[in-house]
Amino acid sequence: MNFPGYYEFFCPVKIVAGHQALEKIPHLLNRLGAQHPMIVTDKGVAAAGLVDIVTNAVTPKVRIGAVEDDVPPDSDLKVVRRLAAVYRASGCDAIIAVGGGSVMDTAKGVNIVVSENADDLMQFSGAGTLTRRLKPLVAIPTTAGTGSEVTLVAVIADHDRNLKMLFTSYFLLPDMAVLDSRMTLTLPPAITAGTAMDALTHAVEAYTCLAKNPLSDAHALLAIELIGQNLLNVINEPDNADGRLALAVGATLAGVAFSNAMVGMVHTLGHSVGAVCGVPHGTCMAILLPYGLEYNMHKSGHLTAQLLLPLAGPRVYAQTPAHLRALQTVTVIRQLNQRLHQETGGRHARFFKEITGPDGSARVPVEKLEAIAEKAMGDGSIFYNPEELDHDDLLMVMSHAWAGTPLDRNLVKKGNLQIR
Amino acid sequence: MNFPGYYEFFCPVKIVAGHQALEKIPHLLNRLGAQHPMIVTDKGVAAAGLVDIVTNAVTPKVRIGAVEDDVPPDSDLKVVRRLAAVYRASGCDAIIAVGGGSVMDTAKGVNIVVSENADDLMQFSGAGTLTRRLKPLVAIPTTAGTGSEVTLVAVIADHDRNLKMLFTSYFLLPDMAVLDSRMTLTLPPAITAGTAMDALTHAVEAYTCLAKNPLSDAHALLAIELIGQNLLNVINEPDNADGRLALAVGATLAGVAFSNAMVGMVHTLGHSVGAVCGVPHGTCMAILLPYGLEYNMHKSGHLTAQLLLPLAGPRVYAQTPAHLRALQTVTVIRQLNQRLHQETGGRHARFFKEITGPDGSARVPVEKLEAIAEKAMGDGSIFYNPEELDHDDLLMVMSHAWAGTPLDRNLVKKGNLQIR
Repeated sequence: MNFPGYYEFFCPVKIVAGHQALEKIPHLLNRLGAQHPMIVTDKGVAAAGLVDIVTNAVTPKVRIGAVEDDVPPDSDLKVVRRLAAVYRASGCDAIIAVGGGSVMDTAKGVNIVVSENADDLMQFSGAGTLTRRLKPLVAIPTTAGTGSEVTLVAVIADHDRNLKMLFTSYFLLPDMAVLDSRMTLTLPPAITAGTAMDALTHAVEAYTCLAKNPLSDAHALLAIELIGQNLLNVINEPDNADGRLALAVGATLAGVAFSNAMVGMVHTLGHSVGAVCGVPHGTCMAILLPYGLEYNMHKSGHLTAQLLLPLAGPRVYAQTPAHLRALQTVTVIRQLNQRLHQETGGRHARFFKEITGPDGSARVPVEKLEAIAEKAMGDGSIFYNPEELDHDDLLMVMSHAWAGTPLDRNLVKKGNLQIR
Repeated sequence: MNFPGYYEFFCPVKIVAGHQALEKIPHLLNRLGAQHPMIVTDKGVAAAGLVDIVTNAVTPKVRIGAVEDDVPPDSDLKVVRRLAAVYRASGCDAIIAVGGGSVMDTAKGVNIVVSENADDLMQFSGAGTLTRRLKPLVAIPTTAGTGSEVTLVAVIADHDRNLKMLFTSYFLLPDMAVLDSRMTLTLPPAITAGTAMDALTHAVEAYTCLAKNPLSDAHALLAIELIGQNLLNVINEPDNADGRLALAVGATLAGVAFSNAMVGMVHTLGHSVGAVCGVPHGTCMAILLPYGLEYNMHKSGHLTAQLLLPLAGPRVYAQTPAHLRALQTVTVIRQLNQRLHQETGGRHARFFKEITGPDGSARVPVEKLEAIAEKAMGDGSIFYNPEELDHDDLLMVMSHAWAGTPLDRNLVKKGNLQIR
């Protein structure tokens, strides 16, 4: 194993996992000195009955100060301000965020406002502007995907000024991530598949990118094993609570891994496809992941080869000749996408050209590939990718991921598929 | 993989590792608002030149407020009080602990006194009596073994009252563990061996004990891989900086693992041998580890079998028939002890009867085994061991570990070596 000469690893979020983990929240909040949390969530989560499960699990041991369930899909300054006013008016002393990335981001924003007693959130944007602990924040993810429950970032839009504000601080990290199998039991198969592939991609890119370290590796490998061994079972058996919990833990571990390493070109391109065509992030990750591994093969094939072990188990790993393991890892991921496509009745897309909008039109028209490649050049994750990428490289990869054809080895211009 | 139905995992210590990791301390302390640390260490560490390395690495960026190098091997209330007085008189605002377990414990005690402004340390003994953050504490371990840099416990003696006070609190956890290969480069081979086997035992017992969870597992498995792959190399090549760093990281990860799981009978008996006969802890761990795995085989053999993978690598793992892997794990550990015995010119003991004191007498006389078994019955780690143990079981295991004979399968009265 090659060690980097220097690295840091930090995850101060307590991870609390179980089939009845929610019931532990009152005790855990109490140890943080809080008793009147505000619940921040969105209409979809509330409609699925998840807020009721949380409320029932924590009352009467804590008194819920307020339940705010109208967080929109993209966090907004006005929402943050309104929720902060409710928090204050209700005498709350902690926040419980129940939902996905946007809910988590909003909760983090509200926490800045109520903890710093500052109505101008803007003054805390950027990195490292927060200097002290905020109010207790409990994160309860309702998809097993983003890893927001263990990241130190929040993105909050200011729609009036057409701005997206980025906040980065260790103080934004939740005090705890509560992973309860009941929160994802009713997630539809295609969303289960997409969010799990998002998490798998976090782990795979954390393990193969330039900023990896042994501790991010340990988290990434366990995440890959948990997702690899449980995803298809859960798709076939949606109420498999053990499998759901395994996916939730896997997604959180993948979040810990990429927060302490970085990601690479799958995110570079995925962000861009999302921005240009509005394709869900998890779908982009699932489609692009095998291409990213192929493109980087001559640089990080020795790492990709290692991933066959957690993905396919020690028997397959040992039986696959060493020089074929990296290619086999890519094959296993393509097969996983294919199986997910079948098991979800085609709702899990395998390549971009098969994604259609509600009217049957292509969500990613071939004419947009140029714009996607163009936009991707500006994405920060490109710097941590094992191999360099220019506009033509990105366009080439996108073209293949669009059509669903593996990368032509001769097209990978900066090297070949030879494993180091 | 079987999941427990509920578990928590928490490690808020930032792990900072590298060949020049010490040089990052000023920046990291600064982010915690501190600039004038006190260094707490012992005479042995200072004599080995390690304090000079730390001081040179951090000055002039921070001004060292005081260097106190006379911490005795068992932390004492008087020492804590004296160091606290120095801290205050020197206007310090943080503590850097450079050393092993006793230095770390003393630093934690000093931190309670100076942060709580309380001269009666006793009022904070026990679990959970601290309620707020203490002063910044940086832990720099100088052996790769105890894991004290990531544990929330401190033991401090009150020699006047013949008491040992135990302190347990998340607030005792250091803010960061700084692992720098220079700190262990000059550790003699026998101590390198003993401390590494201590760390290996932390990881193995964390992975096999009753309170394990997937996150403690991930840390334990990486620790076992790092120690297994690097220990013999470092013994043969003491100035192998990469290997030294790997062992240091492995020991810290093993500490994270057992802090979030527990340990078992190897510690039960090891604590007792240490108390009754004064044998170094690492030596006890190394000798007892294979016996603990043998005794528990019928309960946790399926877990012991998994450890063959990080210990011996995927090829050996896959080539070993499934029903023989657990036994092979025990064999690999015995072979490791044997190699360490050879490579250290016999200074690394393989069984208790070969340990002698300075005058050539037996350190663990056979007449003491009864007392060791008796005392072990009171050790808390016994409850987390996979199989129950009574006095006769403990005496039987100790007798074999004393003589160096593997457990007779027929003697393992509660089961057999059949793997589940």
